[in-house]
Amino acid sequence: EEKKTLCSEVRKYMLETVSRNGGHLSSNLGSVELTVALLSVFDIPEDKVIFDVGHQSYPYKILTDRKEAFKTLRQKGGLSGFPKINESKYDFATGGHASTSISSALGIAEAEKHLGKRNNIITVIGDGALTGGLAFEGINNISATSDKLIIVINDNEMSISENVGAFSRHLSDLRASAEYQKTKKGVKVALDSIPLLGKGIKTVLASSKNAVKKAIYKNSYFSDMGIDCYGPIDGHDLERLISAFTACKNENAPCVVHIVTKKGKGYPFSEMNPKKFHGVGPFDIKTGKNEETTKSSFSKEFGDYMLGKAADNENLCAITAAMADGTGLFSYSEAFPERFYDVGIAEEHAAVFASGLATGGMIPVVAIYSAFLLRATDEIINDCAIEKRHVVFAVDRAGFVGADGETHNGLFDVSVFSSVPGTEIYCPSNYQELREMLDEAIDENDGVCFVRYPKGAEDESVSEFSYSKNSVDKVISNNSESVIITYGATFAAALSAAKKTGADLIKINKISGYKLVPDMLSSYKKVVFAEEGIKKGSVAEKLGSLLSEKGISVKYKVIAVEDEFVPHMTVSEARENYSLSEKGIIRTIEEM
Amino acid sequence: EEKKTLCSEVRKYMLETVSRNGGHLSSNLGSVELTVALLSVFDIPEDKVIFDVGHQSYPYKILTDRKEAFKTLRQKGGLSGFPKINESKYDFATGGHASTSISSALGIAEAEKHLGKRNNIITVIGDGALTGGLAFEGINNISATSDKLIIVINDNEMSISENVGAFSRHLSDLRASAEYQKTKKGVKVALDSIPLLGKGIKTVLASSKNAVKKAIYKNSYFSDMGIDCYGPIDGHDLERLISAFTACKNENAPCVVHIVTKKGKGYPFSEMNPKKFHGVGPFDIKTGKNEETTKSSFSKEFGDYMLGKAADNENLCAITAAMADGTGLFSYSEAFPERFYDVGIAEEHAAVFASGLATGGMIPVVAIYSAFLLRATDEIINDCAIEKRHVVFAVDRAGFVGADGETHNGLFDVSVFSSVPGTEIYCPSNYQELREMLDEAIDENDGVCFVRYPKGAEDESVSEFSYSKNSVDKVISNNSESVIITYGATFAAALSAAKKTGADLIKINKISGYKLVPDMLSSYKKVVFAEEGIKKGSVAEKLGSLLSEKGISVKYKVIAVEDEFVPHMTVSEARENYSLSEKGIIRTIEEM
Repeated sequence: EEKKTLCSEVRKYMLETVSRNGGHLSSNLGSVELTVALLSVFDIPEDKVIFDVGHQSYPYKILTDRKEAFKTLRQKGGLSGFPKINESKYDFATGGHASTSISSALGIAEAEKHLGKRNNIITVIGDGALTGGLAFEGINNISATSDKLIIVINDNEMSISENVGAFSRHLSDLRASAEYQKTKKGVKVALDSIPLLGKGIKTVLASSKNAVKKAIYKNSYFSDMGIDCYGPIDGHDLERLISAFTACKNENAPCVVHIVTKKGKGYPFSEMNPKKFHGVGPFDIKTGKNEETTKSSFSKEFGDYMLGKAADNENLCAITAAMADGTGLFSYSEAFPERFYDVGIAEEHAAVFASGLATGGMIPVVAIYSAFLLRATDEIINDCAIEKRHVVFAVDRAGFVGADGETHNGLFDVSVFSSVPGTEIYCPSNYQELREMLDEAIDENDGVCFVRYPKGAEDESVSEFSYSKNSVDKVISNNSESVIITYGATFAAALSAAKKTGADLIKINKISGYKLVPDMLSSYKKVVFAEEGIKKGSVAEKLGSLLSEKGISVKYKVIAVEDEFVPHMTVSEARENYSLSEKGIIRTIEEM
Repeated sequence: EEKKTLCSEVRKYMLETVSRNGGHLSSNLGSVELTVALLSVFDIPEDKVIFDVGHQSYPYKILTDRKEAFKTLRQKGGLSGFPKINESKYDFATGGHASTSISSALGIAEAEKHLGKRNNIITVIGDGALTGGLAFEGINNISATSDKLIIVINDNEMSISENVGAFSRHLSDLRASAEYQKTKKGVKVALDSIPLLGKGIKTVLASSKNAVKKAIYKNSYFSDMGIDCYGPIDGHDLERLISAFTACKNENAPCVVHIVTKKGKGYPFSEMNPKKFHGVGPFDIKTGKNEETTKSSFSKEFGDYMLGKAADNENLCAITAAMADGTGLFSYSEAFPERFYDVGIAEEHAAVFASGLATGGMIPVVAIYSAFLLRATDEIINDCAIEKRHVVFAVDRAGFVGADGETHNGLFDVSVFSSVPGTEIYCPSNYQELREMLDEAIDENDGVCFVRYPKGAEDESVSEFSYSKNSVDKVISNNSESVIITYGATFAAALSAAKKTGADLIKINKISGYKLVPDMLSSYKKVVFAEEGIKKGSVAEKLGSLLSEKGISVKYKVIAVEDEFVPHMTVSEARENYSLSEKGIIRTIEEM
């Protein structure tokens, strides 16, 4: 009973903090009993638990060593919203990206074997993360005979959107066939649904072998892979969870424990609308309402654009990797279900599938966040670019993303993708340009294109600009001695800075346009390139090198993120911190 | 009988060409009957067949429109060793990298559906390629009710090395349980082992439902995913193959046809040693011997190093992605099986698994070819670099690779990985430096390191150099007016060029060393940076930008691969072509 009370308290505490700071609520509300059960049974940190992604790790943070610190969740200098090795001795892997936990856990388990330790290694992975190929690679590498690994499948029937694909249907079949018990019927019955593994329990269960056998999937994906799978167990029934984990503890073969939880559990508004509360800004606990829901955003504009464009162009189709809502494609998906593909958390497949669609004569637009699109680096090069398939990547969340932090910042896409031959990166600075550049990418370009845009809304100060069709524009031309060069979201800050300092201003619309910039610089003494991305491999570096190669001598200063990862803080704080704000750009010019 | 004769002729012709040009022999010898059967049954190019990777596509090239051209296989300007859309109207996807064919095929199938065509789409995928997570993502996205897709699993029980993992064991179970027929027993029996699908055949088979049912896996991975799976069928029995494909043709549900082939089939030397003849240089058909087998190479030196190092350091372990032979780790794998992990064609898992091993206290060395390591870009950033795991990536085949061409050239690793914060890239120019740099990466560095080295052997002209422990060395310092800067494999050509032109020479040992170069350049008039990689994002570009930022004015010229993919040609031809040879460097200096 004390543990049940604890669960209520954790839920309440979590709800209060997330309603204030924003964060991932629904999955975390679903994992409270799971976490209490894990901590009750296992000797953590000797035993080790890894939460895949980490959207279900808040209760764990609160119940390990971070109860007070949890109040600083996702704030600058505060707790990360994801598991983080350097944050606590209770975290054992980096979170943030999906489908990694089985591979991480196998690595730790193997290391412990070599070093003579044999602690329990547990992963908690959602059914959504199991749609990623990396999870399959992990499962394929589990040795059925020797690995010490407990895989808890937290099946809430969703990733962020509803799950898709054959594997999800398979899990659903398993749930249906085993008809799991939702109500507590005493320890005896609870034990009946768990495996004949724990030594002490073996005796108790000796007489009820059939009941136990029934609880083991014989014809599942996991048994095909040589792994016993137990469940499904009601993931909110503490006693059953504790019994199941106790049974699995200290065994020397890998096993899967399939638990079923309710996303948003215990808070009526999130139970009713778990998608809204998946990742949410600050909200009012009493009403469940938050401010941001009606705000405009690049994602929403992209979605609206696609709705219109698809009506005009029958060959257009859209692909997302489990992010129909995040990428703004939800309305599109309802209007054009036959030309909408949610492929699950499978960015690699998204890219290759798109190349196939292009080969077959369609025009695929693949909407994926910048940070996650790196998963498809190889496929973008090999399957899309080498033979110049016409695939448009809509790169959302490019640049700083704020509270989600270092795993989610979109700081690498320009570095990585600008090195791919024959491709183009479009950089709209406002909604109007987003639409016009998408038009060009879809209607006029015939190769791999990226259209990259930031998280959040356009800056109203630049909303009037439209796309000139030039690769690069001189926006302010006053024969000043200084010039600022920039692109995309940084254009707003650069424009203010230029106006205040009297500097001229050059705006790059397509990344390839940097090649035209040297000829525009002959009259300047000072050149500042402000770029919201990692400096190494940046456009600023490309331009800087071109200046050297062309023998153009000018004071040149790059504002970008030097050799570091940017932790969680608001987007404004990050821009201030890395001198990418109006103030920072002005300061840089003055210091030159 | 004519078709059987054709098979013999194709084998003979293929053997002659590959013995002369080198190439992938074993898998292609195994796919002759398969190809003849596919071309007999399907209306290609209206129907479309996609070969995963393409190690089994030579018979297809010969039998579609490229018989004469096949003599130019893998030669400059000749046929590619892989499927290539731009080479022929009979190719429908880019080959070269594994596990992509199902995703490609799904894309084409969907496009055809939208465009009102309903041709047959067939993929041929090896059991090796099925160990990659991308293949799982493809399978997970097959819609059991609507997709028109025939997946031929060419099960030869190997990828390049023997296959590993749970899925491979599962296929092996399927082979054992169904006990497939190796001998021809007439059409009736052949039909018994194929599904009740083809319309004409239905009548014939109406009386033998049980036999047919037996041939359908009920408890397989595929049936869990909602796909019917037929076989196993002897992949060298033409009649059975033709019957099976005829039955599957024109159906409207996806299905898997599991065929078993023998790698190296029909040539005694490759049957006995399929690994040797997987990818092979020119050889003597009569003896099966080739020249290159005893040659030294960076890969072999790496393997020898690991053998010695593992004996000294109990925490060292090695990971490869289905490339124990190619990466030189075969002897190591036999000496230290418990510290050797072949994870299958699963580069993403390799990186995350390594981060877990590092977290657990081991020192993992991950040996993967440059071109394939891009598959793990996201995992290297998120799972390894963000929390500074000590993982060493041994990046083999960095730079030009010759006849394997554009999908295999290692031209992107420096661009992509040099942008990852807190990491280091070591660039040995010879075996001695390879060993010393591996020592530093393993014993002294404590974060993510890359040690990159080229395909093939060291250039003897530079074999005496050893690693100074400096990030950068001025190797020739004659107060010349010109200086050449380079690293890694290009050092040999640069050294000769420097000697012949009297230029000074700077050698970068660790990529971060470029930051020290500007201070070494004050006395020069001409600076040439020769780099065997893509120019965008190169070290040369980083240095060029730094020169601009530091206000150092000097004639600066970069020799690197501009915005293009480099097709197949020998490594020497490529170096000549892109001015990265001694002659090219000299010419560049003279032109300045």
